[in-house]
Amino acid sequence: MRMVDLIAKKRDGKELTTEEINFIINGYTKGDIPDYQVSAFAMAIYFKDMTERERADLTMAMVNSGETIDLSAIEGVKVDKHSTGGVGDTTTLVLAPLVAALDIPVAKMSGRGLGHTGGTIDKLEAIEGFHVEITKDEFVNLVNKHKIAVIGQTGNLTPADKKLYALRDVTATVDAIPLIASSIMSKKIAAGSDAIVLDVKTGAGAFMKTAEDAKELAHAMVSIGNSVGRKTMAVISDMSQPLGVAIGNALEVQEAIDTLRGQGPKDLEELCLALGRQMVFLAKKADSLEEAEEMLKEVMRSGKALEKFKEFIANQGGDPAVVDDPDKLPKAAYQIELPAREDGMVAELVADEIGTAAMLLGAGRATKESEIDLAVGLMLNKKIGDKVKAGESLMTIHSNRENVDDVIEMLYANIRIADHAEAPVLVHDIVTE
Amino acid sequence: MRMVDLIAKKRDGKELTTEEINFIINGYTKGDIPDYQVSAFAMAIYFKDMTERERADLTMAMVNSGETIDLSAIEGVKVDKHSTGGVGDTTTLVLAPLVAALDIPVAKMSGRGLGHTGGTIDKLEAIEGFHVEITKDEFVNLVNKHKIAVIGQTGNLTPADKKLYALRDVTATVDAIPLIASSIMSKKIAAGSDAIVLDVKTGAGAFMKTAEDAKELAHAMVSIGNSVGRKTMAVISDMSQPLGVAIGNALEVQEAIDTLRGQGPKDLEELCLALGRQMVFLAKKADSLEEAEEMLKEVMRSGKALEKFKEFIANQGGDPAVVDDPDKLPKAAYQIELPAREDGMVAELVADEIGTAAMLLGAGRATKESEIDLAVGLMLNKKIGDKVKAGESLMTIHSNRENVDDVIEMLYANIRIADHAEAPVLVHDIVTE
Repeated sequence: MRMVDLIAKKRDGKELTTEEINFIINGYTKGDIPDYQVSAFAMAIYFKDMTERERADLTMAMVNSGETIDLSAIEGVKVDKHSTGGVGDTTTLVLAPLVAALDIPVAKMSGRGLGHTGGTIDKLEAIEGFHVEITKDEFVNLVNKHKIAVIGQTGNLTPADKKLYALRDVTATVDAIPLIASSIMSKKIAAGSDAIVLDVKTGAGAFMKTAEDAKELAHAMVSIGNSVGRKTMAVISDMSQPLGVAIGNALEVQEAIDTLRGQGPKDLEELCLALGRQMVFLAKKADSLEEAEEMLKEVMRSGKALEKFKEFIANQGGDPAVVDDPDKLPKAAYQIELPAREDGMVAELVADEIGTAAMLLGAGRATKESEIDLAVGLMLNKKIGDKVKAGESLMTIHSNRENVDDVIEMLYANIRIADHAEAPVLVHDIVTE
Repeated sequence: MRMVDLIAKKRDGKELTTEEINFIINGYTKGDIPDYQVSAFAMAIYFKDMTERERADLTMAMVNSGETIDLSAIEGVKVDKHSTGGVGDTTTLVLAPLVAALDIPVAKMSGRGLGHTGGTIDKLEAIEGFHVEITKDEFVNLVNKHKIAVIGQTGNLTPADKKLYALRDVTATVDAIPLIASSIMSKKIAAGSDAIVLDVKTGAGAFMKTAEDAKELAHAMVSIGNSVGRKTMAVISDMSQPLGVAIGNALEVQEAIDTLRGQGPKDLEELCLALGRQMVFLAKKADSLEEAEEMLKEVMRSGKALEKFKEFIANQGGDPAVVDDPDKLPKAAYQIELPAREDGMVAELVADEIGTAAMLLGAGRATKESEIDLAVGLMLNKKIGDKVKAGESLMTIHSNRENVDDVIEMLYANIRIADHAEAPVLVHDIVTE
């Protein structure tokens, strides 16, 4: 088998066999096939796509390129959730205890990553004492006993995906559905869950700018998951404006607590229920999505979800008192209001740019070496469709520096007030096949 | 400027500026832009093509990546001829003296190369004493005085093309018209001629399998040449069967002598006249192609062309007596006839496979290290459309080994006899813009 012939085959729109895809991914991982052949291959895929069978094969070839996590020692159906990434996305912090409160095992492997705010681990570290440096045995024991634990990324998972992603990033081959879908799914599958719920974002703050593209990606991922024996569902959700009202690490922990209490922002709660009911359904704890949603609402109402969150915090060294005492979270030195300059309705809150403003304050990492300030961020006081009067606060800037002129300028440039505006639809679609 | 953005621009079907194309080719030649970005770029070109302006810019960027030959010390309009390559193509050996006999300067830079037979230099070296190791000054002086000289490839011409071609070869991006056209034209332009005549082959023995593809390539090259100030024309010619009757180095020298004498195979003569008249016309020695053709026929008839060939041989150390005495050419030890196995008409002589059979005898190089046997090769006694009786010789195998069973097997597998067949059209088209 020669790589040049396989590139030509894909270039000519033909379907590669499982053996051929394995040859490519194994050869690339080992370094036998050079970058310059794989980049041409990726560009051919960009133009000629892959069949569902090829996508599943590519995913599994990447899964098999490295270690995989064995969660079989954990009882029950393990359901993982993945978001394609957005601004102010607090869903994981809410969903983990919410679902665990229904006795569904949440064995979460999380990272730190780059972006507007930190990753799930950074956010949780806003709780004093909380840590994810636990052994795999401790992790399994915690989930078996308490149904919830978070561990840092461990092992050499999907090295082929890491190598391929780095190459795609510099060869203009990132934006290809089969490559995006197999990249995400390979990581999720290697992480060992039995079922996967996907939150595919669409809009200015998302990778997929249109709902159609997001739906295509969601379908691709759901198809891969189901065809390799991991039950998968997806929600297409709006990311034209930030989700919820908090953007920042400690701020989002507080927002999660509020939401678990049933007092969070309506859009965040709605999305958590949309994702959560799929998780409960896939975990076979409910016979329908409607029944699953009722069960989730019940554990929010009863306080059981909040108790689970406290238990989770305590298990991993954190102080559970933070749940009832917001002063225990890190607090920024300055709270600066951003007044509206005119009367009207909020018509635009450009998600990615507002996220970047939060990063400027120190809420996220611009490079791997950046230090995160867990206290800082933005609190939205108005969202799209809300009425506002001139002088009324649009946002509160939580900062540890006094002068935030750069942030203010950036925020104003990305907020539009109009005579009339309507809140965007939050959940665009549900994808189950 | 970032290469990844330029790959994306081409991927999205947009037109690159001259500056952008120069950035890519300069960066690639210097090693600042890696292979893996250029291979993705080449694949994007495969799918999205290039405008005529981009093609001309790419060609000139490759010309400017290295040295160029300055032929300005040679008087008159220097016309070069290039063939896209076929089997038994003796045209250069005929055309050089034929055109020089009309006082048109032929300053030919030639190579050895891989293939079914040797390159022009290998063929000429079948003449005892002939050599191309002359200085550039000697070369210029010879052309000024005698209108004809051949020199080996000299200088670092089009290094960008060499590097890009090697990369395309292993990334399934060879078959892209803008890349093929710019590769060929960059070499021709760097070699310094004022005008270029192209012989674009089509059929089994050619790179372009269909006349349509050949025409597209011809048009692309003619357009590049004319847009950068080198008058260019092209002929689309048949390569479904070998050209002429000789395949082999000494055999083709003899065939060239016969043709200059007006006693060569009709198809070879026809193609030499079709190409030659364009050369004469572009050299401004005739006002029309018809007039040019008459002039060529006249120097064949008068013996002036053959005299010019003798003069050329003597100038470069060869023995001109070879022209009148075929025994002075190397001769193979064995002449083995290949008898027809049935009555009928020759319907197929698969050019590339028959060329490979000649290479098996030693007529060409399979790798750079191969040694050529100048004496061996094939002489076709029948061509497509010819009647043949069982037992009559289809070809004569000139070999220096006694057992040629492998060659015979290969030849029979690529000759088809049918009840009826017609000779293919030789000159498919003339492309002037």
